[in-house]
Amino acid sequence: MKICLINPNTTAAMTQKAASAARAVVSDDTQVIASNPAMGPESIEGFYDEVFSVPGLIEEIKKNSDADAYVLACFDDTGLDAARCCTERPVVAIGEAAYHLASMIGAKFGVVTTLSRSVAALEHNLIKYGLMARCSGVRASDVPVLELESITADGASNPAYDKICAEIEAAIKIDKAESIVLGCAGMADLPERLSREFSVPVVDGVAAAARMAESLAALGLTTSKIGAYAAPGAKQYSGIMRPFQP
Amino acid sequence: MKICLINPNTTAAMTQKAASAARAVVSDDTQVIASNPAMGPESIEGFYDEVFSVPGLIEEIKKNSDADAYVLACFDDTGLDAARCCTERPVVAIGEAAYHLASMIGAKFGVVTTLSRSVAALEHNLIKYGLMARCSGVRASDVPVLELESITADGASNPAYDKICAEIEAAIKIDKAESIVLGCAGMADLPERLSREFSVPVVDGVAAAARMAESLAALGLTTSKIGAYAAPGAKQYSGIMRPFQP
Amino acid sequence: MKICLINPNTTAAMTQKAASAARAVVSDDTQVIASNPAMGPESIEGFYDEVFSVPGLIEEIKKNSDADAYVLACFDDTGLDAARCCTERPVVAIGEAAYHLASMIGAKFGVVTTLSRSVAALEHNLIKYGLMARCSGVRASDVPVLELESITADGASNPAYDKICAEIEAAIKIDKAESIVLGCAGMADLPERLSREFSVPVVDGVAAAARMAESLAALGLTTSKIGAYAAPGAKQYSGIMRPFQP
Amino acid sequence: MKICLINPNTTAAMTQKAASAARAVVSDDTQVIASNPAMGPESIEGFYDEVFSVPGLIEEIKKNSDADAYVLACFDDTGLDAARCCTERPVVAIGEAAYHLASMIGAKFGVVTTLSRSVAALEHNLIKYGLMARCSGVRASDVPVLELESITADGASNPAYDKICAEIEAAIKIDKAESIVLGCAGMADLPERLSREFSVPVVDGVAAAARMAESLAALGLTTSKIGAYAAPGAKQYSGIMRPFQP
Amino acid sequence: MKICLINPNTTAAMTQKAASAARAVVSDDTQVIASNPAMGPESIEGFYDEVFSVPGLIEEIKKNSDADAYVLACFDDTGLDAARCCTERPVVAIGEAAYHLASMIGAKFGVVTTLSRSVAALEHNLIKYGLMARCSGVRASDVPVLELESITADGASNPAYDKICAEIEAAIKIDKAESIVLGCAGMADLPERLSREFSVPVVDGVAAAARMAESLAALGLTTSKIGAYAAPGAKQYSGIMRPFQP
Amino acid sequence: MKICLINPNTTAAMTQKAASAARAVVSDDTQVIASNPAMGPESIEGFYDEVFSVPGLIEEIKKNSDADAYVLACFDDTGLDAARCCTERPVVAIGEAAYHLASMIGAKFGVVTTLSRSVAALEHNLIKYGLMARCSGVRASDVPVLELESITADGASNPAYDKICAEIEAAIKIDKAESIVLGCAGMADLPERLSREFSVPVVDGVAAAARMAESLAALGLTTSKIGAYAAPGAKQYSGIMRPFQP
Repeated sequence: MKICLINPNTTAAMTQKAASAARAVVSDDTQVIASNPAMGPESIEGFYDEVFSVPGLIEEIKKNSDADAYVLACFDDTGLDAARCCTERPVVAIGEAAYHLASMIGAKFGVVTTLSRSVAALEHNLIKYGLMARCSGVRASDVPVLELESITADGASNPAYDKICAEIEAAIKIDKAESIVLGCAGMADLPERLSREFSVPVVDGVAAAARMAESLAALGLTTSKIGAYAAPGAKQYSGIMRPFQP
Repeated sequence: MKICLINPNTTAAMTQKAASAARAVVSDDTQVIASNPAMGPESIEGFYDEVFSVPGLIEEIKKNSDADAYVLACFDDTGLDAARCCTERPVVAIGEAAYHLASMIGAKFGVVTTLSRSVAALEHNLIKYGLMARCSGVRASDVPVLELESITADGASNPAYDKICAEIEAAIKIDKAESIVLGCAGMADLPERLSREFSVPVVDGVAAAARMAESLAALGLTTSKIGAYAAPGAKQYSGIMRPFQP
Repeated sequence: MKICLINPNTTAAMTQKAASAARAVVSDDTQVIASNPAMGPESIEGFYDEVFSVPGLIEEIKKNSDADAYVLACFDDTGLDAARCCTERPVVAIGEAAYHLASMIGAKFGVVTTLSRSVAALEHNLIKYGLMARCSGVRASDVPVLELESITADGASNPAYDKICAEIEAAIKIDKAESIVLGCAGMADLPERLSREFSVPVVDGVAAAARMAESLAALGLTTSKIGAYAAPGAKQYSGIMRPFQP
Repeated sequence: MKICLINPNTTAAMTQKAASAARAVVSDDTQVIASNPAMGPESIEGFYDEVFSVPGLIEEIKKNSDADAYVLACFDDTGLDAARCCTERPVVAIGEAAYHLASMIGAKFGVVTTLSRSVAALEHNLIKYGLMARCSGVRASDVPVLELESITADGASNPAYDKICAEIEAAIKIDKAESIVLGCAGMADLPERLSREFSVPVVDGVAAAARMAESLAALGLTTSKIGAYAAPGAKQYSGIMRPFQP
Repeated sequence: MKICLINPNTTAAMTQKAASAARAVVSDDTQVIASNPAMGPESIEGFYDEVFSVPGLIEEIKKNSDADAYVLACFDDTGLDAARCCTERPVVAIGEAAYHLASMIGAKFGVVTTLSRSVAALEHNLIKYGLMARCSGVRASDVPVLELESITADGASNPAYDKICAEIEAAIKIDKAESIVLGCAGMADLPERLSREFSVPVVDGVAAAARMAESLAALGLTTSKIGAYAAPGAKQYSGIMRPFQP
Repeated sequence: MKICLINPNTTAAMTQKAASAARAVVSDDTQVIASNPAMGPESIEGFYDEVFSVPGLIEEIKKNSDADAYVLACFDDTGLDAARCCTERPVVAIGEAAYHLASMIGAKFGVVTTLSRSVAALEHNLIKYGLMARCSGVRASDVPVLELESITADGASNPAYDKICAEIEAAIKIDKAESIVLGCAGMADLPERLSREFSVPVVDGVAAAARMAESLAALGLTTSKIGAYAAPGAKQYSGIMRPFQP
């Protein structure tokens, strides 16, 4: 099986980090190819950046039309609805994947993201998915996306890491979160360390989405084409399809 | 006062129809300038088309940076959140304007739009705005946007018009709508005729948004810059601002 | 155009303050007439006071039957549903107007009102309108309505003003409000000063409602008479109206 | 124990019918006194009528200040919030009582009321109480309140009765209601006959409220005075009370 | 009338305490019989314990098939849906009874329960009943059920009691609760003392459920058998019943 | 990896059908072991049957304590919360798995289940999960669980199959479902045939849950033990854990 992971921003280091996170969790016989648009924003922080990343994201889907499933590796789930219009193959975004899986391992999950300007976009998504009902709150750590790179694997003291930890602690103690969702693709290398530190499950959306996309493809499930995700320009179904003949 | 109306698709006839609808309702001393992107989709029908219209829409806002307020003339409210990041001036989209006003003239409003593939986008917006609580349902007439042009002012029999009427009737009788919102900028010339025909108020979003944008500007209300709509790249506020000094 | 503003309490000074706020924002050719009942409560603070103000409010609407639109200048939106039954002309209450406009300039708005006993009434309204989804919380300043008069324009230190500021600060920092709605007609002269002090948009309902009422009238929108707001004693429509003849 | 039942309209026959329904279900040693205002609307059908009935209703509560609990016998729950401000004794309205009890005998209850103009008022109440989550729908039978009197006990064929039955049938078959709430005090004599006819439990609000009011009084539960239902003019509690001393 | 109260855990002292609380509030001619399963958990603290208590609870209902109504005396409302399938007689659980009555004496009620692991179960119930809309929050005191026995009637200082008081205080001051629901059958002897201490109504579910069960029986209301609570193995109704014959 | 699939009813044929469905979709190196309790109901149709199946289900989990993840193969998601208390390993129920995956392939999914008495249980789950927001409705086909066995693979005409098709058609045409979830483990062999027949994706919960359980285990995600799913009798965490040391 071939999964195409698309990072909708242009920072290749993030694309590689996400690809590694995905490859670490899929089955041996699943190939993960990863790409990002050549042009567009370096990171996606809020509504404005989303706009300029989506045309490139759609382009990448079209270029990789032989994939069995797609992963959109931006936690805002940027361009998800449009991407689903372009292909019958399953498309999974990393925010939704993380929320869905976190719903199955605790009563409530907390989300810790980067900048406060991104909070509203994540909340809109949670409401649209229905999963705000399971979320104890979305907290901003005020660590810009690109500053996440300063966190090193050796666990050295680091202000960006400390800010994230402070919000996780607040999510658990104040908001009563039972698990934590990390709200940025750039945090894909942190779940293990944070989970050990806080004794709660910590979900990274990239790994989650890779497994969900692989699962949908393995199950033979495709994107429905009779409504919201009809192909552009396709004949209108209007909810009417081939009459049922028992 | 100068209001800049932007039709995010490239069909100039729709831009002109919308501009006329706006000019008909604003104050005498309010000027309405109207534009549309030079490139992008001819009409916006569903999630895919939205993607390719928004970069052009943002461009038009920047080109018209001296406006006192902006109207986004696509009923999907395409690009609204991003547009609000680009300017402190008020930005009003025609879907939201219609829903807000319809909430003040009846217990429930019904929405009648073009194709069924657009229904999910409108429902997402209604949920995000909170106003699904006031909506009796979104109905698709299965009239494509560009076919709306076939409806003539003289009231001649017309299949597109009849399909719209059939859904309005269902909205009132079955869904218990007390007013009707027309779910496409291309229907901006129909409210009066339909209101007479059905004895209920019929709301066109273009006219509604023009008045709302004008009102926000007249009230001196601007878009908040401390959260979701912070300027791209601006220093992060994180909810902290100039300390209050009584 | 003639707008009739009705203050449902009997404090003439509040009526005049509200009339001034309305006149400051409507178009030059719009006349605002203002009145209040001769008998009833001096201020409306909670459910009990509402009861005794509404018959007088209805009386004022009937006396001013030639108005093009009505503004109800009590933040509890007292009597709004009944008022809409008495006239086909648009009726806008100041609470709803403020909430609707605040929804268009930020992701979440906070409400700061007078006494804590009024909070439940405002929350009921927000839920009924659907706009609780956009509200970060309703906070009471514990400043009684009539004490608001002690706040002077010169910005002199004042305990009532300080209490309001403290709640605004909490709304922004704790509740993550991006704009503030002032929850009492008696605060109609404060938005400009508070907006400057806190760098967020501050919405006064009186001005907001005046513009909304004027807009509905300019748009030719009337209150629907086929359901909740049917005229008292009118023949029952039951959702059946003149059959549609294509 | 003494329960004071107040019919907020001026039709004495309805007051007597409601008193009988209440007396039939309370304990032997509970006395039900019943009254209605001398002036005001003959029946309460929609928002307008509510306004003019509430001042008289409040008056009746004050006249009967020695009651142990109060029942408000109008299905719109007219004046309920204001009534709770006037007394520490429990006040139960017939709509809420019926909804609460119906929630305990089936997964979903349907409501069948009189005129369609009353539907919005009942829906607002259901949303405010939270119990819309348990309601399969509110249906109007288009039988005006005073026409209910034409239904005779002997089960003779009667158009008003037939209309009510048609809506009950639709509530069960289409809306999947498992029990029925009769949405008007004037239907207080119908539950037994309708329950037999449809094999589902049928709830009359008057009897329900009489038992609920009696229960609250027997349990020593009073109306909270620290928030929404504080006595008019009482010193503001602001959520602060006698400090807890362990 | 005979009411059968079932404590689904095996601690006979709790059964007796609950029976006393019920007997103290029902009418003189109502008999309360009380029982608990012979086998199963000693106390019910969270989802796991629920499982092993419900088969015994169902057994007790069958043994007491001549009762007029049933009270389930565990605050998780354990086994409520299944119990309703076993009998046509009304079945009331103590959690739901407390929530319903608390909704009629204040704008919002707070719940104070035992261990934090029980919070999710109570929240699920509140959402299912619709009454989360009226709840200011569920707080855990971290007092295990069986430790409640250490609280003596004489008001002697006691750590368990103090922990409960601390959460009540927080519910009132922070969450803005206007009344308090005690979230455990083992707290059935505390309402009077706590209500005096905090000047708010305090609701015990056992007493509440006893009165509600008695009321449903007195009103002749039974559990609907056409849907969710159909008898096991009964012919399927599918929403179709004896055709209505006017 | 070893996944333990538990069918909580005692019908071994259903256990085998479910095991086959699971084995068909997991990775080659994943072993699926399947079991069912020796005693308890033959099928689970509604709340009553659930009670008697859960103790046996818990027993099976304990017997298979070396599994890496668990699948609960009853569409009511019977015993899910309790099962999560017994193990740190992930536990996935087939209802939730189907709903979560269906949310990622269309705007709305419809559920078609067996008997109408099961509808309320499924709706409660959907509300608890938050995913009612994505569900177009739950429809009962009135085919009892054990009658599903009459449907043969060769597509011969069959009344049970026809009833299911009729409800799928209604879900698509009336409720606007874009995908279909089959609401019973006994339908695990139908998705392919139905998907072909209706041109929409059709989700079987057993296959979905097998992949989700495998994914959670592969991702190293465990059930959170700090709140709702704490081990029975474990020391109370109360939201307090090892203090964070940066």
